[in-house]
Amino acid sequence: MFSQDSTNTLIRALRENAPVGTGTEPHLLAVIADSAAHPGRLVRARLVHAAALAHGLDSGTAEQLACSVEYFHLASLLLDDLPCMDDAETRRGRPCAHRVHGEASTILAALAFINRAYALANLAFAPQAPAVRVSAHLCLDACLGTAGLVGGQALDLRFAEGAADARAVAVVAMRKTAALFWLSVVFPALLANPTAAELHELKALCLYWGLAYQAVDDLSDLLASSIETGKTTGRDRALQRPNLALALGVPAARRRLVRLAGQATATITRLENLHSRWDYLVRFHRSLFIGQVASLVDLSAARAA
Amino acid sequence: MFSQDSTNTLIRALRENAPVGTGTEPHLLAVIADSAAHPGRLVRARLVHAAALAHGLDSGTAEQLACSVEYFHLASLLLDDLPCMDDAETRRGRPCAHRVHGEASTILAALAFINRAYALANLAFAPQAPAVRVSAHLCLDACLGTAGLVGGQALDLRFAEGAADARAVAVVAMRKTAALFWLSVVFPALLANPTAAELHELKALCLYWGLAYQAVDDLSDLLASSIETGKTTGRDRALQRPNLALALGVPAARRRLVRLAGQATATITRLENLHSRWDYLVRFHRSLFIGQVASLVDLSAARAA
Repeated sequence: MFSQDSTNTLIRALRENAPVGTGTEPHLLAVIADSAAHPGRLVRARLVHAAALAHGLDSGTAEQLACSVEYFHLASLLLDDLPCMDDAETRRGRPCAHRVHGEASTILAALAFINRAYALANLAFAPQAPAVRVSAHLCLDACLGTAGLVGGQALDLRFAEGAADARAVAVVAMRKTAALFWLSVVFPALLANPTAAELHELKALCLYWGLAYQAVDDLSDLLASSIETGKTTGRDRALQRPNLALALGVPAARRRLVRLAGQATATITRLENLHSRWDYLVRFHRSLFIGQVASLVDLSAARAA
Repeated sequence: MFSQDSTNTLIRALRENAPVGTGTEPHLLAVIADSAAHPGRLVRARLVHAAALAHGLDSGTAEQLACSVEYFHLASLLLDDLPCMDDAETRRGRPCAHRVHGEASTILAALAFINRAYALANLAFAPQAPAVRVSAHLCLDACLGTAGLVGGQALDLRFAEGAADARAVAVVAMRKTAALFWLSVVFPALLANPTAAELHELKALCLYWGLAYQAVDDLSDLLASSIETGKTTGRDRALQRPNLALALGVPAARRRLVRLAGQATATITRLENLHSRWDYLVRFHRSLFIGQVASLVDLSAARAA
């Protein structure tokens, strides 16, 4: 699941399913091709790919569902970096798309990715039973709309206008980061027609993973350099954006991260006991999540010393 | 179909299906509510509504499909008006959303509309046969992606970098305006499982209607004032954007518009002969399209005199 082979498969699939064709305007084409060719760690795509294979999709369709979620994620990164949003300079160790190709081409590329993402998701779910398809459509609406990613980004940008405390930080993180995990975990899990108990644990897992990853990001923004993260750091303080480590202080944020990691581990254990079909989540948790949290906890302890 | 009752129904539906909920950030909420409350002439929504009712959807679902297409359209207007795109000042007789609520909230509102539009379209098609659903998903991808609206807007913005002749004007108009008609005509017609011959005529109709409406828009941009159109005029020349009347001159553009209207009328006649289930298109053509073309032809003749 998290082998180099699987990563290479996804990198090829991201290129092959990209929304380009004959006559695509060259600047638009450049943003799309550049973005698809320089993926990040593909955390979400690999989760979806593993889920889709575990829940019975053939390999081509599993790749397409993975590309779908990765394209939604890619679009959100292109837009979040815009001057009117985070005004970022670098992403994945390279200049942001809008600084190379202009804002208009970047916005249009994001729309092209979103559109293709919907097509791939819809086609992957097309052979499923009506109830499964309807829950998939509702899940996308909840994850991506004002209740999810879009709404979270709006709260993020206006964070300084509100209470700007740890609770407000968590609200933004739930709508943004947890919604992306929901898209990567709950959405493909619908293929397995989960029981109410399973769905409950899957949703809890997204919450703990999402809040934990956001805490990792927040601590990194304060403690790591752009060289280490590949994206512009120190932006949260400069732009008055939600950041758990700014709201609570680094030691308290680190303690909360450790607590969230423990809650995620407990949820994973419950899922493992419910059914073996969630093994891919258990593997992800143990092989990737735990290691990333641990190295950030170490970094924050070292910088504090 | 084109009664005041139907318009009021759609205005209510646009408000009710809008992508807002508890906790929606106030600036984002304002753009969405403002846009949904000030629709234009609802040409596309009324076409889709009439199609959905004619092809067997219940009234609630028909409204939702109409809202879906109108939200896609609304999103494209919000984005086209941005400073990095057309940098427009007014739309529908009011200041553009980004001038009132900022660029970030406007971009996020557009995304929220697109997301809700997909959910409504997918739910409306959910009970259909697999082949119908798959063609609906492919149709949305073709209309909205790089082959359609997004690709057309990219070519539009970079128009001055190419040949900038009447042929290039038509390419942009096909991807932008004709694709929106395709979304409003071919997409809901898929509910009726059209024959190959019917599909051929429906696509031809979208091409003639699309190119004709774009010619009307291009002539208006040159000849009418902002007061008459409700949106910023004279932008095509200033921004070196595709405009048939600039490429050919007003008299030749007017002649081409008359020829396109004739081709649309011939197509409508063929559809009328194929099956009575296309009557709503016949009514639209005779009650709205012909009148709008005629008044623009009159205006351009009067201004030329």
